[in-house]
Amino acid sequence: MKPKKTGHIHSASAEKIITKRKKAFQAKDLIQKIANGNTTALSQAITLIESTAVKHQVVAQEILKGCLPLSGNSVRIGITGVPGVGKSTFIEALGTHCINNGKKLAVLAIDPSSSISHGSILGDKTRMEQLTTNTNAFIRPSAAGNSLGGVARKTREAIILCEAAGYDVIFIETVGVGQSETAVHNMTDFFLLLKLAGAGDELQGIKRGIVEMADALIINKADGENVPAAKKAQNAFAKALHLFPPKASNWQPQVALCSALENQGIKNIWELIENYLNTVKSNQFFKENRKSQNKYWLQTSVENALKDDFYRNIKVQDQLPKLLNDLNAGKITAFQAAQELLKKAK
Amino acid sequence: MKPKKTGHIHSASAEKIITKRKKAFQAKDLIQKIANGNTTALSQAITLIESTAVKHQVVAQEILKGCLPLSGNSVRIGITGVPGVGKSTFIEALGTHCINNGKKLAVLAIDPSSSISHGSILGDKTRMEQLTTNTNAFIRPSAAGNSLGGVARKTREAIILCEAAGYDVIFIETVGVGQSETAVHNMTDFFLLLKLAGAGDELQGIKRGIVEMADALIINKADGENVPAAKKAQNAFAKALHLFPPKASNWQPQVALCSALENQGIKNIWELIENYLNTVKSNQFFKENRKSQNKYWLQTSVENALKDDFYRNIKVQDQLPKLLNDLNAGKITAFQAAQELLKKAK
Repeated sequence: MKPKKTGHIHSASAEKIITKRKKAFQAKDLIQKIANGNTTALSQAITLIESTAVKHQVVAQEILKGCLPLSGNSVRIGITGVPGVGKSTFIEALGTHCINNGKKLAVLAIDPSSSISHGSILGDKTRMEQLTTNTNAFIRPSAAGNSLGGVARKTREAIILCEAAGYDVIFIETVGVGQSETAVHNMTDFFLLLKLAGAGDELQGIKRGIVEMADALIINKADGENVPAAKKAQNAFAKALHLFPPKASNWQPQVALCSALENQGIKNIWELIENYLNTVKSNQFFKENRKSQNKYWLQTSVENALKDDFYRNIKVQDQLPKLLNDLNAGKITAFQAAQELLKKAK
Repeated sequence: MKPKKTGHIHSASAEKIITKRKKAFQAKDLIQKIANGNTTALSQAITLIESTAVKHQVVAQEILKGCLPLSGNSVRIGITGVPGVGKSTFIEALGTHCINNGKKLAVLAIDPSSSISHGSILGDKTRMEQLTTNTNAFIRPSAAGNSLGGVARKTREAIILCEAAGYDVIFIETVGVGQSETAVHNMTDFFLLLKLAGAGDELQGIKRGIVEMADALIINKADGENVPAAKKAQNAFAKALHLFPPKASNWQPQVALCSALENQGIKNIWELIENYLNTVKSNQFFKENRKSQNKYWLQTSVENALKDDFYRNIKVQDQLPKLLNDLNAGKITAFQAAQELLKKAK
């Protein structure tokens, strides 16, 4: 069945969905349909999750509770790389390979910055022609929202729903230049960094710290006259990654070449991911990592709520600019400024 | 004048200091003496800062206010590396070089874990014989404390006092295996990672993420039969660091060799630091970085206070283990668990 492309949060359309049925019945009904792999129900549930209306959230949280016991049985793969690196083509190629091997694939994106452009990633679905028309693929553009915390939560919840609907491979795409990579790293089992061949050896534009997160560094567009430069880069990066301290997973990050456009090297990358999964499932890291990710998101949600609450306080907003000035003028220490702010907030 | 070795927080000794004089007078007096470079006064003020007694904190914060306008004119250098890498010997060698070039040097350490062992770093002063007896050096063991936040604050405040006392080079030492490196990185202008030569190419034992923070990677013990291996490692690391995204400072991290024991390569390392300072002072990063560090510590202090307050709540402590269990059993999402906790805390 062709997935329904609901796009971004339309409060009006969510409204329409919800008034159709009674709430309690609706949640139960959607859970049932999602469990049966119904993509229309899956899309509707994600729309409810993305809605900021309280009544939609009530149903959404009910649906999540019902879907949770059905979730968890997937491989969650984070894919990052700067614009122009060929992420869509890569996702199309790797995704099609997965499906041809009997998998069901869901593709989500996390991109808080897109709240302005309304979805800069996964927006152009023409680049994923094969996947969009494949009944074993479910593609959902990035959730809109102003805060990374909010968008990350929606994405985490969408993962649960997709898993409950039977998708056993989940790609989560991000653009590699902002704040969202840590979030994606903290909600995936495997983190893949895409890089260009023939564009010098440096990771131009990519945010520092991302390389250390990566489980695999994939050099894309390794075709035609790019091949020698790509091979040279592969060699250099493989050596460099060996110099870094070992990861908690005990997995040695790999560097691989591919040409997503020419569909070369894709099979090899999937095998690399399977090797990783064998390693971390046998050494228990896979399970432990998901546990600590759960704890991370619990704590992050709490802390974000505490911070939001604090900085929304009008007295704090009043004092903060003055205190920052005093701080930079050397009239007050950072700790004294913090104490002042905390006093004001009470 | 030989610095007074006050060691760790002795509430009793702080008590003695404070009852000697009246509070208001005492703060003014200590500020004056610190400004004159009196190391006994400096030690006393740091002891007050480290004391948890409210009355000591009142005086300590007064002293800080008085010292702030006199602070800031130093180079703050973070030095990290696993135990056994030769940090003390390195600090002795580089510190002595600074002093021979007309600098006044203060050496502080940050090591929250040492609250158990009561100062595992800078504890063994016999390794810094030259510095401990040099009138232009002020050495202070790491502040004790149970929380990184508390220890970091004390160290930040000690930096201010040392600067007010005329120390124009401040070393802040950390062990490179725990949580304190990010804190040290966020309170220094230059971050230096010490590594062993002839111990393989990998950074065994060092925490991931530290390499990306480093402005310089120094391979110590590059002497005798270690020299060829050290040179090979230098070459490999220099190439590897070039593959990483550029730093916000626009500084390309350097790899250098030294033998602290044989006092070789030390002059070169100091020149490297001076080159860095020239770069970041002319491109304004030095100033901007200190500003964002101020903001970081203001925000971190606020957030730590909010978190501490929250997790100290008895209702939160009651519910947390159960919610974590439910979370890991897949009965509840991380966000739902967070909402539950936040509700309980109210």
